[in-house]
Amino acid sequence: MKFTTYFTMNEEEAAMYASEKLGYLFGDEFHLTCKEIGDGNLNYIFRIMDEVSGRSIIIKQSGPVARISDEFKLSPDRNRIEYEILKLEEELAPGLVPIVYAYDPIMNCTVMDDLSDHQIMRKALMDFKVFPKFAQDITDFMVNTLLLTSDVVLEHKHKKDLVKNFINPELCEITEDLVYTEPFSDYKNRNDVFELNKEWVDEHIYHSHALRLETAKLKFEFMNHAQALVHGDLHTGSIFVKEDSTKVIDPEFAFFGPIGYDVGNVIANLIFAWVHSDAHQQFDHMQWLEDTLIETVDLFIFKFNLAWDHNVSESTAKTPGFKEYYLATVLRDTTGVTGLELCRRIIGLAHVKDITSLSGNVRVRAERICLSGAIDFIVKRDSYYCGEDFLVSMKKAMSKFAREDYE
Amino acid sequence: MKFTTYFTMNEEEAAMYASEKLGYLFGDEFHLTCKEIGDGNLNYIFRIMDEVSGRSIIIKQSGPVARISDEFKLSPDRNRIEYEILKLEEELAPGLVPIVYAYDPIMNCTVMDDLSDHQIMRKALMDFKVFPKFAQDITDFMVNTLLLTSDVVLEHKHKKDLVKNFINPELCEITEDLVYTEPFSDYKNRNDVFELNKEWVDEHIYHSHALRLETAKLKFEFMNHAQALVHGDLHTGSIFVKEDSTKVIDPEFAFFGPIGYDVGNVIANLIFAWVHSDAHQQFDHMQWLEDTLIETVDLFIFKFNLAWDHNVSESTAKTPGFKEYYLATVLRDTTGVTGLELCRRIIGLAHVKDITSLSGNVRVRAERICLSGAIDFIVKRDSYYCGEDFLVSMKKAMSKFAREDYE
Repeated sequence: MKFTTYFTMNEEEAAMYASEKLGYLFGDEFHLTCKEIGDGNLNYIFRIMDEVSGRSIIIKQSGPVARISDEFKLSPDRNRIEYEILKLEEELAPGLVPIVYAYDPIMNCTVMDDLSDHQIMRKALMDFKVFPKFAQDITDFMVNTLLLTSDVVLEHKHKKDLVKNFINPELCEITEDLVYTEPFSDYKNRNDVFELNKEWVDEHIYHSHALRLETAKLKFEFMNHAQALVHGDLHTGSIFVKEDSTKVIDPEFAFFGPIGYDVGNVIANLIFAWVHSDAHQQFDHMQWLEDTLIETVDLFIFKFNLAWDHNVSESTAKTPGFKEYYLATVLRDTTGVTGLELCRRIIGLAHVKDITSLSGNVRVRAERICLSGAIDFIVKRDSYYCGEDFLVSMKKAMSKFAREDYE
Repeated sequence: MKFTTYFTMNEEEAAMYASEKLGYLFGDEFHLTCKEIGDGNLNYIFRIMDEVSGRSIIIKQSGPVARISDEFKLSPDRNRIEYEILKLEEELAPGLVPIVYAYDPIMNCTVMDDLSDHQIMRKALMDFKVFPKFAQDITDFMVNTLLLTSDVVLEHKHKKDLVKNFINPELCEITEDLVYTEPFSDYKNRNDVFELNKEWVDEHIYHSHALRLETAKLKFEFMNHAQALVHGDLHTGSIFVKEDSTKVIDPEFAFFGPIGYDVGNVIANLIFAWVHSDAHQQFDHMQWLEDTLIETVDLFIFKFNLAWDHNVSESTAKTPGFKEYYLATVLRDTTGVTGLELCRRIIGLAHVKDITSLSGNVRVRAERICLSGAIDFIVKRDSYYCGEDFLVSMKKAMSKFAREDYE
């Protein structure tokens, strides 16, 4: 087989591809087998195992349409973007992304480290595991990939070249629709609300004018504010963990957008885990998640300040007071996005298992807690300054929905 | 001559170029002569006249460095940008830009209408002329080229392709340095302050922390806010006028930036003309300029609202209250940029003749009026809502510096 024209590979073809193209990764003798292990929305993930060396790698191939719905037709350019971004992220935040070995623009695939010794973080948190290094690692990742790709640090002409290189119209459109638009209006009838919460969502979300107006402002901020190279999909399903390691994967949504977009996604997904642990009355795990949420926000702020002082090269950015102003706008965006992600995963097309694994009134309560917190995050996003502020909002939301009323 | 390798043409060579490449514009028989008429900072402007038909055209060629200072090395890509922008602007705002006929990527030149029957607006205003159609024309130009290239109207993926196509790192850098940085710090020692105002500028500008902090915020807004396709250099030296016609030229600074950048430049340059007329005690002309300033702001707001209601295609942008929010941010940016342009033309490297044609204490006073208004525009930019607000600030500034004290 020549692999000179694009087609969507099956397991056998992916193994042949690896034999022909990637033998150098395995040594002189190898015997490859393959398993498709993708469960995301957009791609095919082939794990290639060499029975001789025991070594394994991943081939990630983009299909011509999204797996979640063939409504989303996507340019395979996202695979080039993913490859280049992973290279760049490895430079900026070494050890926190998988190593990439090759990119094939014909077959639209990227070859990278197999992380089978890691677990998808969402699943691990649903099993009530804890990851003591997580807050340290993810804040290193965010501060290094975000602040260091902003105009504060990068030479401005170089930064504009990067902006140009990573303009990502199709993937951004998915976010604009699924995160910023549909959850608050259902105008395309694509939302997927849990039956027992339909009335509640109708009253508290679809009919909230304040919410709609504030999300409109946030949407234009997302579309127009080319602040830094954001990952663009930094939820706990895009993070692989083991006890002493954190790896951020799937940067295909990356583009130059607001820094708060990534930070808010991390916080919202810690909140989903927290609500899930609460539903299972795993109070120790909740406590760890609360500590981690606070640590993530506060370490982000601390390291952001530190990295600013060490790296700022922009003469104007050194003006006293400008760092504080800039960070305040990042936190405001972060808070808004936390609310958006909480809403869209409950109301919109793409759900999270933390919530969908719950049933009946337990799910009803978990969803209302998330949405109730989300409304505050979006509408009052100007008044969050530290990790504790986020937790206080969520505890207030939880206290509105007594467990005994939802049993 | 083949014109197959780039070189900077002289008059004779430009005439030969027109004979060889552009004969089709003149008819079967022609006899061409040429005169270089450029007085801008960046390019060579050849007027080609055909003595047979009487027809004339302009060839605009980019040099490899800016004429103002060879510190600025510029990619000739700005000529492609100019050509494509003029085409696009003619579609969006018909009749308000010169027609372009050809673009030559080898010789880095663009061929367009000769506007010799028009006058550069700055010069005409310095001769105390009035242009009754100006406010109507320039607001048509701004609303149509700006709002219609924003996400409010354009399909979002198409808009992102345009953003990519018009990323303009080198010309943006000039603006970042000359408009947003140097006038407020003089950190590169390139400023050029009128001797008799050096002390005043030192006290009121270089030592104002508020001003420096606010201009830092505005600078990052300019760099990161890809709102609409701005002209990027819309002063009265980029506008040709005659009594019944307005033509906007020189869009080589164009890129996707804040809408207020263009509007603020127009207002600031009307203010320079107003201060110039005041210095010459041409009170009728001042009155026309005051009316025109108010009309320009108020018509911009009026037409912006109208064009929004007619053209908005973005579902989220239709949220009640969003238009008012969006317009308020545009006016805030407009006000800030008005202040920036007033400062940089007096303090920075590139001056305007409205001011430099004055001398002694008359110039001292004119500059202080401009700078004093500018400080308000920048620091209090949140509180300007209509044309009258701008004029009130400038009249207040003028009243601080009594004519009799500066004679």
